[in-house]
Amino acid sequence: MDADVIVVGGGVIGTAIAWRAATAGRDTVLLDPGEAAEKASEVAAGMLAPVSESVFGEENLLALNLRALDRFPSFAEELEAAAGFHVGLRTEGTLNVALDSGDLAALRRMGEFRRGIGLPAEEVTGRECRRLEPFLASNVAGGLLAKGDLSVDNRRYTRTLRAAAARAGVREMTGRATAIDGGTVHTPERTITAATVVAAPGNGVTRLDGIPGPVRKAIRPVKGQILRVRHPGTIPPVATRTIRAMVVGREAYLVPREDGEIVIGATQEERADRDITVGAVHDLLGDARAVLPAVSELILAETSVGLRPGSTDNGPVVGREGEDLIIAAGHFRNGILLSAVTADAVTALLDGKDPAPEWAPFTPGRFQ
Amino acid sequence: MDADVIVVGGGVIGTAIAWRAATAGRDTVLLDPGEAAEKASEVAAGMLAPVSESVFGEENLLALNLRALDRFPSFAEELEAAAGFHVGLRTEGTLNVALDSGDLAALRRMGEFRRGIGLPAEEVTGRECRRLEPFLASNVAGGLLAKGDLSVDNRRYTRTLRAAAARAGVREMTGRATAIDGGTVHTPERTITAATVVAAPGNGVTRLDGIPGPVRKAIRPVKGQILRVRHPGTIPPVATRTIRAMVVGREAYLVPREDGEIVIGATQEERADRDITVGAVHDLLGDARAVLPAVSELILAETSVGLRPGSTDNGPVVGREGEDLIIAAGHFRNGILLSAVTADAVTALLDGKDPAPEWAPFTPGRFQ
Repeated sequence: MDADVIVVGGGVIGTAIAWRAATAGRDTVLLDPGEAAEKASEVAAGMLAPVSESVFGEENLLALNLRALDRFPSFAEELEAAAGFHVGLRTEGTLNVALDSGDLAALRRMGEFRRGIGLPAEEVTGRECRRLEPFLASNVAGGLLAKGDLSVDNRRYTRTLRAAAARAGVREMTGRATAIDGGTVHTPERTITAATVVAAPGNGVTRLDGIPGPVRKAIRPVKGQILRVRHPGTIPPVATRTIRAMVVGREAYLVPREDGEIVIGATQEERADRDITVGAVHDLLGDARAVLPAVSELILAETSVGLRPGSTDNGPVVGREGEDLIIAAGHFRNGILLSAVTADAVTALLDGKDPAPEWAPFTPGRFQ
Repeated sequence: MDADVIVVGGGVIGTAIAWRAATAGRDTVLLDPGEAAEKASEVAAGMLAPVSESVFGEENLLALNLRALDRFPSFAEELEAAAGFHVGLRTEGTLNVALDSGDLAALRRMGEFRRGIGLPAEEVTGRECRRLEPFLASNVAGGLLAKGDLSVDNRRYTRTLRAAAARAGVREMTGRATAIDGGTVHTPERTITAATVVAAPGNGVTRLDGIPGPVRKAIRPVKGQILRVRHPGTIPPVATRTIRAMVVGREAYLVPREDGEIVIGATQEERADRDITVGAVHDLLGDARAVLPAVSELILAETSVGLRPGSTDNGPVVGREGEDLIIAAGHFRNGILLSAVTADAVTALLDGKDPAPEWAPFTPGRFQ
């Protein structure tokens, strides 16, 4: 037996789980393919905005995401204390803006919905929008200020998780798991064993022998292209809050970081390649300019692609699958947001307890 | 005396001159700052299209550029034979297209002008345009086929020049010249001397002591942002010829390479920074999509910036400036096109002869 727990997958989910397992005193191995560019969490925008992200008919997922939003700050605080540095959590909230009266009506409905579930949602006029965010387009007709929404610098967050995991004694190994068999994990280079294996390989789940077929079939990569822009020295910050809008039927968002970077996202494409395409970059830049014209003067610093692991019902897949296997996969667009409560759920499962009730609809068994 | 000739500047102009000087039997040193990314020639599109580029009132420049177009193929042929590989010269011509009737009228006038100076210019209908280039936008109203226009792969061309120069015995030294004094060139690291110094430092001319003040003042960097896109394996080539169009008042061009790359350009900005900006990339991608919608599916492979050395009258600055100094600078948008005839002109000057008559309006003395 090489460890108490082997966590397969070094993305945000696997690393969060490994940190918590080691903190609870378990001898933990984190098996990571080691290619940061392949991790959806490295490409994410880091919005923690369950309501803005919610879709009608996904009430179970919304309930889980709301639990995740509630949990995130305390998790981040403990993480920062453990690692000794900050994750770049921003609490200025989200300003959803409308560029025409149809969008404004939709925002009003979203406001009612948010308030109905007890979340802050303040209706603001176009003028108030521009007072809050002076660089907004002059045709912004009105908005909805979601003070409860958070965002986190996804790359600082995963770096912090990794540092905390190392400090807690997690042993990181480089390797790509090909099969799980009982408590044994096979890679092309080696075989390691533990009392429990936690499979958190993102899209890798589809190529991992030992994961039940229905789970493997339920998950597929969803391509997202995303941009990062930076301020040249001559230009003051053009955004304080996360800004979201519908632009010609596409959801556009701009997520500002403490260091002056703004993340602009994102496409959602049912494909698995990593090509940065002319059409996607053009659309994203156009949407961003439509909402915040001053971004025209900013520096296009990065174009990147993430392959988000989406399940057939858009929900994550977390639960036990036999004596020695726990699955934590399929986090789709909510990997960063759900990382804290996923680590909590896996901690409970390792302790032989039930995860929080919001997890009940998201077991691997639902696909059988 | 370290050499017969020291050429200051390892861009396309300096390298072409050094190759020809060495080929003529002169012991030649090429002093190159060595930072390829700083060279406008590395960023260029490589269009050899004097008429499409010409502006009313610049007849002298047009005459020079026409001479350059005429000379380029034989120069390239000799270069390829000397270096042993190809420069990627394309002879399919340029298809200028019009997206509306106003543009079409302008194209008709350009056609008359081209034919008036003896250059091929065939008027084609919108349908014929799409037959020539099947991926053109469906609203292309008509076009002008300029069969005489050429293009060259700028990076293969400069690499070939460099290889030919080395084969011809040019001694390359890395260093940034700060001053020229008689036949002496100073860099922070060393001092070298020759019978003649040829100053071809692009924008560096403004920081080079020993160049007459009026010449230094006449040249300034003109920023150009340019994109390179590539075909994913699943998509056949979407363009055969150089395609040009006016889009919302901006000149857009797409220059296809043999290897499937397409260069999309370019902005023209009176600034000297190297920032890739959101606005410029968005505009260039939008213009390209408007002309050739299929580029949407291509890969955005590179965004880059060139600082073209423009003079106050947009013409190059080539001529003797005293016994031991020859200046070859200010080639602006035409550095690749003019490289062959500039090398010829400097060869003539080194031989004590007059350059071709088209050079007469472009001496350094005109700024005094």
